[in-house]
Amino acid sequence: MMVGPDSSDPSAPDQALTPSGEIWHCWNGRSVLITGGLGFIGSTLAIRLYGLGARVTVIDSLIPDYGGNQYNLEGLQEKIRINLSDIRDRFSLEALLHGQEVIFNLAGQTSHLDSMRDPQTDLAINATAQLSLLELCRSVNPGARIVFASTRQLYGRPHYLPVDERHPVDPVDVNGINKLSGEMYHRLYHQVYGLSTCVLRLTNTIGPRMRIRDARQTFLGVWIRQLIRQEPIEVWGGDQLRDFNDVEDVVDAMLLAGGRADLPPGPYNLGSAETISLRQLAELLIELHGSGELIVTPFPEERRKIDIGDYYSCYSRFQQACGWQPSRSLRHTLKRTLAYYQQHGEHYL
Amino acid sequence: MMVGPDSSDPSAPDQALTPSGEIWHCWNGRSVLITGGLGFIGSTLAIRLYGLGARVTVIDSLIPDYGGNQYNLEGLQEKIRINLSDIRDRFSLEALLHGQEVIFNLAGQTSHLDSMRDPQTDLAINATAQLSLLELCRSVNPGARIVFASTRQLYGRPHYLPVDERHPVDPVDVNGINKLSGEMYHRLYHQVYGLSTCVLRLTNTIGPRMRIRDARQTFLGVWIRQLIRQEPIEVWGGDQLRDFNDVEDVVDAMLLAGGRADLPPGPYNLGSAETISLRQLAELLIELHGSGELIVTPFPEERRKIDIGDYYSCYSRFQQACGWQPSRSLRHTLKRTLAYYQQHGEHYL
Repeated sequence: MMVGPDSSDPSAPDQALTPSGEIWHCWNGRSVLITGGLGFIGSTLAIRLYGLGARVTVIDSLIPDYGGNQYNLEGLQEKIRINLSDIRDRFSLEALLHGQEVIFNLAGQTSHLDSMRDPQTDLAINATAQLSLLELCRSVNPGARIVFASTRQLYGRPHYLPVDERHPVDPVDVNGINKLSGEMYHRLYHQVYGLSTCVLRLTNTIGPRMRIRDARQTFLGVWIRQLIRQEPIEVWGGDQLRDFNDVEDVVDAMLLAGGRADLPPGPYNLGSAETISLRQLAELLIELHGSGELIVTPFPEERRKIDIGDYYSCYSRFQQACGWQPSRSLRHTLKRTLAYYQQHGEHYL
Repeated sequence: MMVGPDSSDPSAPDQALTPSGEIWHCWNGRSVLITGGLGFIGSTLAIRLYGLGARVTVIDSLIPDYGGNQYNLEGLQEKIRINLSDIRDRFSLEALLHGQEVIFNLAGQTSHLDSMRDPQTDLAINATAQLSLLELCRSVNPGARIVFASTRQLYGRPHYLPVDERHPVDPVDVNGINKLSGEMYHRLYHQVYGLSTCVLRLTNTIGPRMRIRDARQTFLGVWIRQLIRQEPIEVWGGDQLRDFNDVEDVVDAMLLAGGRADLPPGPYNLGSAETISLRQLAELLIELHGSGELIVTPFPEERRKIDIGDYYSCYSRFQQACGWQPSRSLRHTLKRTLAYYQQHGEHYL
């Protein structure tokens, strides 16, 4: 059952709900690298790992519009090694990979529209650089555990619901095609070279530190910005069903996947037992915020061609493999997120 | 029923078996571009199109080991425009795309082992350059018909036989992953931008002009070289079933796909009603050659990890869409191929 106690500090890791035990102690003293570590999920993971005693290095290129934000690790600059570089830079990456026990590979371009406007950059980051990282691991650090953050975007329009890992892949944008290559390289380098890779396919991830300046990470970011600015929330369509994961649940999943070197590469869907329509989500957000207005408009033409309709994932494969299940309720997550941006919103607008 | 008359000149197009009619007349006077046009299939297509009255331009980079061979269009240098350039060269490609009515996009890296030894080059050619070509078409020639030569390699190890287009894609090497991206870009640019693309997934294609210097295009090439040199044919394993298409049947398919602008992008498998084990194929080759020796050896370790076991395609989707079916028997194709290399082998060794 999902519960949702309030956290007094919305910028602190939400560990109240994370099960305690051996699985979390294993991180004490371990060297870990997080690519995309100044981004939303990467920085949340870095903070948690630092709290568990890991020696954390993050890489981030801070490419404008990609989600990297130095404020995400504010106050931790002395505790976490923050290396500003691009994973397309072969030599710096090689040196940074050396000696890492676990690599959380989260760097990527995530915007569907950007991938259509500048497909070659999307390809360079989501496929070419991933292949480079794996080749470098093969040569300088073949024993590292590598967890790759993939996406439900690979499935395209669902043929059935909930979508499990047997569902055919059929991306509806350049981003999905390139992320699929990046994921396939990770699985192939396990099969052929024995690298210890593991692929998680994330669904919509939300929580403190997500990008709210625009819809590049999630439309929910835009809604929160609209709420904070006392503008109406604009909902496109409204009936589409979605599933959401609290970023701390995603961090739990990554730590489980990273800590279990015997776990096959997957892929493994994350997901949620809660699904909600976009209109209901907007209404819930307004209720929790205490005020706000909702405008439902037809789907914009530019986005219609890459819209996927209803979507939610089946996560039972990963649940069976690792015992993972999301433990934060959507209501809890939204409250925590709203509280975070009320305190820290100026750094994200 | 498959028939197999002898052709007196094995270097001439094998048009005896190609159905005559309107579908072939449509090429008279049309401007067509063939990327990879000095390669095995590209040159065979160029010769046929020239014979049908088309204005043919071929592009080829002549990268060593990729299959481009100037001898493939020997004697046609005045009839066919041969432009030596790399499809990764954006500006020359842009100029060459301009004004073409049909583009047969065959340029690619096809060797599985090369893709593992130099994965970045495979990615640059099979994915990055394909995306570039499609972006250029969007901007300078959005009305062109584009036929893309994809591969059964995308399917990986078959889950069932014969493999149809609903079979999941699961490439077993870097080449398959990158070819999948190239194919998906073609289908996406139809869905999103309305480009008139069509994807054919080729199975093992054989015939005159194929590479016989090594196994980069097909192991059958190596066997023919071994026969010509009076060396024993070395068969790995031997029980694996395969399907083969005569290159002229593949050219028929490409002309049908290129001539039918209303045909959805597919993908469409090619294939053959004849399947044969590798050992039987070697025996048939020796019988047709009139001499030769066969040695069966275990599968080499390096190739075992990317071996796919038995494979043959179901081609009924394309048959229903276009009326295509392979009309050359394997026996006919092998005889024609052996005759070609007996006459011209020195240019391929």
